[in-house]
Amino acid sequence: MTPIFRRLESEVRSYCRSFPAVFDSAHGSRIRTRDGKEYIDFFAGAGALNYGHNHPHLKSALLEWIERDGITHSLDLMTVAKEKFLQAFQEAVLFPRTLDHRVMFTGPTGTNAVEAALKTARKATGRSSIVAFTNGFHGMTLGALAVTGNRYNRNAAGVPLTNVSRVPYDGYNGAGPRQSLELLEVLLEDNSSGMPRPAGILLETVQAEGGVNPCSIEWLQGVAALAEHHSIPLIVDDIQVGCGRTGPFFSFEEAGIVPDIVCLSKSLSGYGLPFAVVLIRPELDQWQPGEHNGTFRGHNPAFVTATAALDFWRTNEFRGGIDERSQIVTERFDRIADASGAVDRRGRGMIQAIEWADPETAGRVSEAAFERGLIVETAGAKGQVIKFLGALNIPLDDLNGGLDILEESVEMVTTPRLRTASA
Amino acid sequence: MTPIFRRLESEVRSYCRSFPAVFDSAHGSRIRTRDGKEYIDFFAGAGALNYGHNHPHLKSALLEWIERDGITHSLDLMTVAKEKFLQAFQEAVLFPRTLDHRVMFTGPTGTNAVEAALKTARKATGRSSIVAFTNGFHGMTLGALAVTGNRYNRNAAGVPLTNVSRVPYDGYNGAGPRQSLELLEVLLEDNSSGMPRPAGILLETVQAEGGVNPCSIEWLQGVAALAEHHSIPLIVDDIQVGCGRTGPFFSFEEAGIVPDIVCLSKSLSGYGLPFAVVLIRPELDQWQPGEHNGTFRGHNPAFVTATAALDFWRTNEFRGGIDERSQIVTERFDRIADASGAVDRRGRGMIQAIEWADPETAGRVSEAAFERGLIVETAGAKGQVIKFLGALNIPLDDLNGGLDILEESVEMVTTPRLRTASA
Amino acid sequence: MTPIFRRLESEVRSYCRSFPAVFDSAHGSRIRTRDGKEYIDFFAGAGALNYGHNHPHLKSALLEWIERDGITHSLDLMTVAKEKFLQAFQEAVLFPRTLDHRVMFTGPTGTNAVEAALKTARKATGRSSIVAFTNGFHGMTLGALAVTGNRYNRNAAGVPLTNVSRVPYDGYNGAGPRQSLELLEVLLEDNSSGMPRPAGILLETVQAEGGVNPCSIEWLQGVAALAEHHSIPLIVDDIQVGCGRTGPFFSFEEAGIVPDIVCLSKSLSGYGLPFAVVLIRPELDQWQPGEHNGTFRGHNPAFVTATAALDFWRTNEFRGGIDERSQIVTERFDRIADASGAVDRRGRGMIQAIEWADPETAGRVSEAAFERGLIVETAGAKGQVIKFLGALNIPLDDLNGGLDILEESVEMVTTPRLRTASA
Amino acid sequence: MTPIFRRLESEVRSYCRSFPAVFDSAHGSRIRTRDGKEYIDFFAGAGALNYGHNHPHLKSALLEWIERDGITHSLDLMTVAKEKFLQAFQEAVLFPRTLDHRVMFTGPTGTNAVEAALKTARKATGRSSIVAFTNGFHGMTLGALAVTGNRYNRNAAGVPLTNVSRVPYDGYNGAGPRQSLELLEVLLEDNSSGMPRPAGILLETVQAEGGVNPCSIEWLQGVAALAEHHSIPLIVDDIQVGCGRTGPFFSFEEAGIVPDIVCLSKSLSGYGLPFAVVLIRPELDQWQPGEHNGTFRGHNPAFVTATAALDFWRTNEFRGGIDERSQIVTERFDRIADASGAVDRRGRGMIQAIEWADPETAGRVSEAAFERGLIVETAGAKGQVIKFLGALNIPLDDLNGGLDILEESVEMVTTPRLRTASA
Repeated sequence: MTPIFRRLESEVRSYCRSFPAVFDSAHGSRIRTRDGKEYIDFFAGAGALNYGHNHPHLKSALLEWIERDGITHSLDLMTVAKEKFLQAFQEAVLFPRTLDHRVMFTGPTGTNAVEAALKTARKATGRSSIVAFTNGFHGMTLGALAVTGNRYNRNAAGVPLTNVSRVPYDGYNGAGPRQSLELLEVLLEDNSSGMPRPAGILLETVQAEGGVNPCSIEWLQGVAALAEHHSIPLIVDDIQVGCGRTGPFFSFEEAGIVPDIVCLSKSLSGYGLPFAVVLIRPELDQWQPGEHNGTFRGHNPAFVTATAALDFWRTNEFRGGIDERSQIVTERFDRIADASGAVDRRGRGMIQAIEWADPETAGRVSEAAFERGLIVETAGAKGQVIKFLGALNIPLDDLNGGLDILEESVEMVTTPRLRTASA
Repeated sequence: MTPIFRRLESEVRSYCRSFPAVFDSAHGSRIRTRDGKEYIDFFAGAGALNYGHNHPHLKSALLEWIERDGITHSLDLMTVAKEKFLQAFQEAVLFPRTLDHRVMFTGPTGTNAVEAALKTARKATGRSSIVAFTNGFHGMTLGALAVTGNRYNRNAAGVPLTNVSRVPYDGYNGAGPRQSLELLEVLLEDNSSGMPRPAGILLETVQAEGGVNPCSIEWLQGVAALAEHHSIPLIVDDIQVGCGRTGPFFSFEEAGIVPDIVCLSKSLSGYGLPFAVVLIRPELDQWQPGEHNGTFRGHNPAFVTATAALDFWRTNEFRGGIDERSQIVTERFDRIADASGAVDRRGRGMIQAIEWADPETAGRVSEAAFERGLIVETAGAKGQVIKFLGALNIPLDDLNGGLDILEESVEMVTTPRLRTASA
Repeated sequence: MTPIFRRLESEVRSYCRSFPAVFDSAHGSRIRTRDGKEYIDFFAGAGALNYGHNHPHLKSALLEWIERDGITHSLDLMTVAKEKFLQAFQEAVLFPRTLDHRVMFTGPTGTNAVEAALKTARKATGRSSIVAFTNGFHGMTLGALAVTGNRYNRNAAGVPLTNVSRVPYDGYNGAGPRQSLELLEVLLEDNSSGMPRPAGILLETVQAEGGVNPCSIEWLQGVAALAEHHSIPLIVDDIQVGCGRTGPFFSFEEAGIVPDIVCLSKSLSGYGLPFAVVLIRPELDQWQPGEHNGTFRGHNPAFVTATAALDFWRTNEFRGGIDERSQIVTERFDRIADASGAVDRRGRGMIQAIEWADPETAGRVSEAAFERGLIVETAGAKGQVIKFLGALNIPLDDLNGGLDILEESVEMVTTPRLRTASA
Repeated sequence: MTPIFRRLESEVRSYCRSFPAVFDSAHGSRIRTRDGKEYIDFFAGAGALNYGHNHPHLKSALLEWIERDGITHSLDLMTVAKEKFLQAFQEAVLFPRTLDHRVMFTGPTGTNAVEAALKTARKATGRSSIVAFTNGFHGMTLGALAVTGNRYNRNAAGVPLTNVSRVPYDGYNGAGPRQSLELLEVLLEDNSSGMPRPAGILLETVQAEGGVNPCSIEWLQGVAALAEHHSIPLIVDDIQVGCGRTGPFFSFEEAGIVPDIVCLSKSLSGYGLPFAVVLIRPELDQWQPGEHNGTFRGHNPAFVTATAALDFWRTNEFRGGIDERSQIVTERFDRIADASGAVDRRGRGMIQAIEWADPETAGRVSEAAFERGLIVETAGAKGQVIKFLGALNIPLDDLNGGLDILEESVEMVTTPRLRTASA
């Protein structure tokens, strides 16, 4: 690591330890280091770069805005850029899905969106406890951390994390959707279950950080039905798997459900710029002016690129490309998993994962791939899973090239003879 | 309000109600609406635009970075832009002040920096409770909201806000610094005071949102001495009044103290782009890799503009300009306060305020000024204070022009005859 | 209800609404009202009168102590009565079971014992969260209420109840012991489960107030093994089903486990006098003097009767009587349940229950029995269960007489024709 | 210490370490050990024995009840003994003071009464935070411990103690009543103070455990006025200084205020038997049946002795005796304090204290007095205060005899020459 990072940056730094290079520029699914070395990117900013790095369509809109002194920072004032974003979001996202949700601009990070969503639900219901699921991951500020499952992150809170009821997610510990739903139902209905009547039920349709766990359609519909039956707001955290990651714009569309509250961030700006919103059913929008605020809610460059990015959702072409790539990744991941004796294979759309019995395998695969020019990350509480999270429009050559590197790396790591030879 | 904002945006929107225009572009201390109307800006993005809007020096660096496909989003990977920022921050800020703090890159908002700072202190001490002060304002996520005093914002939490001991700030309820310090001392030392041994003492040197309350040097030194004596980390939230707002880069420099932890955000990027860091004494940097994380910690455009902005701090010229402008604002505010029968006048450097007996006066002044082409905000729990928060380099013509408008607006609002005439 | 109770006592009064008579005296399993009406008692002070009312052996010891001015109230000073109790408890309870637990005298109520037990576990582990089970019932003060499942009682707390992880009890929602144990195991071991590493696991071997749910031996042994494996103190709340209720002195003896902490109260004094202790493995007794205290820890009349009551445990005769009565109750309850179309029959030893489909049936049975001279209570979150909780030494005539009344009452309530006739 | 206590009782035991004798019997203000040694009692069960040990009038009523098999344990059923208590309480306490409060029978300890009182206030207001004062002492269960100031006891909670706003008590850190009241007022009224709108204000009129701090009439009236003005229930914890300790039955009578909620316990039964009630203004009695419950709410022997004890309050004679004794104690304490160079002297009625500069002096005085046949305890966070808490009807010979011993002990401890000689 370059001395200044090691000397000056806090010990909390993390990814730079796994991928120890100094990066300089990026385009599409390629990142270049200061020394000119190029990497294929299967990580995409942890899902914040669904359209790849510095997409030309967004870049030109951004440059134009900056060059003509378009206002950069506007708190929550009305601006031309914000108006265009709202219009585009309405046209390209809300209207085609017959959604009438309100848009709340929060501080431009996922954790802030989750905090605002939880407040929205608590305020509207007058209740305090949130149902969250095993392996859920929602952020690092105290409200969002309380609903996050990861013990390593939770222990760093320094205070007990409260006002959450934790329930097994679909498939947790091998249970099927029926079993999980029935337990949730009885916990809600039994007046002696010990679960407070909740202010909201919060879920990810694919638990990304939690180890790439997709829930079933049946389970998702079941939870939505329970939430509706008990008048509990259903909150979908679509921060990592929204914006097309699973195929459609929202990850829950396939299930035909309509959450009461939706959190979006990461790829919302399309360009990797900080941006987040919370979508709220009108009847739950019981906010008073300024009750939740924040300095960077008016990040106009992000409005500009987000608006440009929504162009991809006005026709079917982009979606078609996602499906094509998903199929390629799925097939290759199946093959790699089979060949390497993996214990689990899971994923949905453009988020795919392989798990091996030895929890250290995935980390070694990531390391070997990096040596060969591919950035690919692990996931799960023990980092036991290798995760594909490439851009949704990754060039097919990069996709196949990256998959080749991954396959080779897995083979190297999981074949005893090869490992010895490489040691 | 343009229909789409009213129809689609959450009721939580706030500033757009006070300043109902659709803004388009901005330069220096001037903002232009879509209709070509121009406003002088005495608000500066709530302190996020200390160098004015779209400063050319920063703008050119930003454009160059974007044009050459400099990496935009990099999580916490090492990048060329981040390295340059760290070097510049060390040279222009840390070394000249003989500080050896580590830099923690948090999610790019003030509230996230506060959350990270509180975790840092709790983790290092193994204690849970934070001493915070009356009228403090630190953010909207649950951890930061707990240390915030504002009841309106606190009530929106939907859960009790815990692990905070609230103590009167310097001057609270008319008490002098000695009285406040003595109470804090006995609360710390008396084993039956009911105050838990704290994990940290958190303060702003000027409570900006809380109503522009500057603390005295004596009090600040006294708190720092108590913190040191009791081995309690002193945390300065310099988000709103750091980066030169009071004159020097840090607002606490004048007192000759060295906080253990410092939060910076708002004007740190210099261009209004989201960015935040926490500075931590090395011995308190007890973080494990990734214990606190976040998607937008690697917002390279902000690193680029922040690095350019630090150039202003390499010579004395910029600082001289602040002092010159501070003096002008101070004198004019004194005069306006005197002439209008204000009940209080306070401020430090480029944050200045006037308070009138009638809590609605400030709001009416803000409204009248907006009609006349000036954006100036209120502060305090009842919005009872008018607050100057212009850019530190505001052109003298704009400064004087804005002050003229303000003076006229105050006169109009506070002179009975004129108010009737205007009605 | 006599006017003064209605006029002067708080609305919180409860049992007096179900059993609206003014009671005067009591002996054995008979209670007499002011008007001379006599009731057979199948409730035994909610389990506080395992030896019946005013047992002569205890009564004479008590009278002697009072008459000779034995000290009544002694805080936690050493007294002759306390010494005798400790000696008797050691000889009759601890030594025969090879237990080396320390005795902590707490405030003389069950909820205080639970609070002290939770503190003991938190103090010894340095952790904060307690694993408690669905339908658990442990008391009304905030610490004990947090581990209690009942929503009706929890809602009266007025604050969120925190630092508890709720897990399904054996048999909850029809699941078997394996399923419950496996879920608990994975929640403990999975670092992303969202369950904090617990300070203790708290359980009742028969959930009495929660609806008379006995756990299986297999489950109890499984939980004990998990607790030991993970170095988590196992806390058994034996307040209602200890002191012989299930046969042996402790309800967990049959499972061959040794809890780290045990709470006793209710029948501990034997005479219905307030008394409670917490038994603590020596290595967990990390208390400093006076850290937990209370005015009524030295209630010497209770020590005196408790000592006399321990005489029953020095030979096998008393235990034989419990078994004989348990068998009678079990057989008659089976018959009544069968004949009345009950949906569930459960219990262990001298705590037995019947549940019908209509949750109001049990309440009507209780009412009908009271009219016929029998006091028998309901249990469960909806009061859906009729519960036998008679004295362990109830005279066989009273037992059979009471069961006859109960049978008749059930028949009356559950037979449509009879119900109409009685209406 | 007798082996069995040391071997078998938890380390938490406390008073038995200061007064290491095994006590056997007691009468009036005299306690006798097993070995026949007799002590004068200036501690009176920490205020639980205001009428002395085993008062004959109460004793005969108690014996009669037990002998005739009066019901001992009755949950919250109606009983003859409870009815008589309610009638006597109405006649001797409520009516003469024109109070119309309801009586809530709680678990028979002070901490349980405080828990019930806090729930009552939270339930009635729908708010969660309680204003409590520095040095307040209210009990050891989590809800009561949260409002207690003592750090030693608080640290044993094992979890953060929440939902409390701590405010300086009258005289705290040398401030006068005006200053304390003004701070409380501004904290309540300032919407940015950080203090939540409280559910209740809880206070002791003399902080007994906190170091014998009596508040002034002015302050008490001021707090009551603020509470009324802001519609916040005023809760007086009269557990230690009610039942005549300061002269009148309630300690707040002198101030002419009427609290909304009052907690009584300790001397309520008069005989040292566990008993507690909460008095509630009818409009705050918003309890549902059984929302707060407990096994030992129906401790009939305590009802019987409490009823007998109320006879003392039907005429003026008993009260006259208190005043006579208070005057004696006050004068002698003044003299002892003066002669020994004490730094503070304070108290009210029959609770009086002396504080010396060296916090260990009081402990040594207590020890020396015990050697000479007097039991007298220390108080305050460091045990820095010697406290008189004798029975209200202590025979004048015992009073003077005890004061002689105390004077001699103080002299011995505080006179350098004597201390050396005795070493």
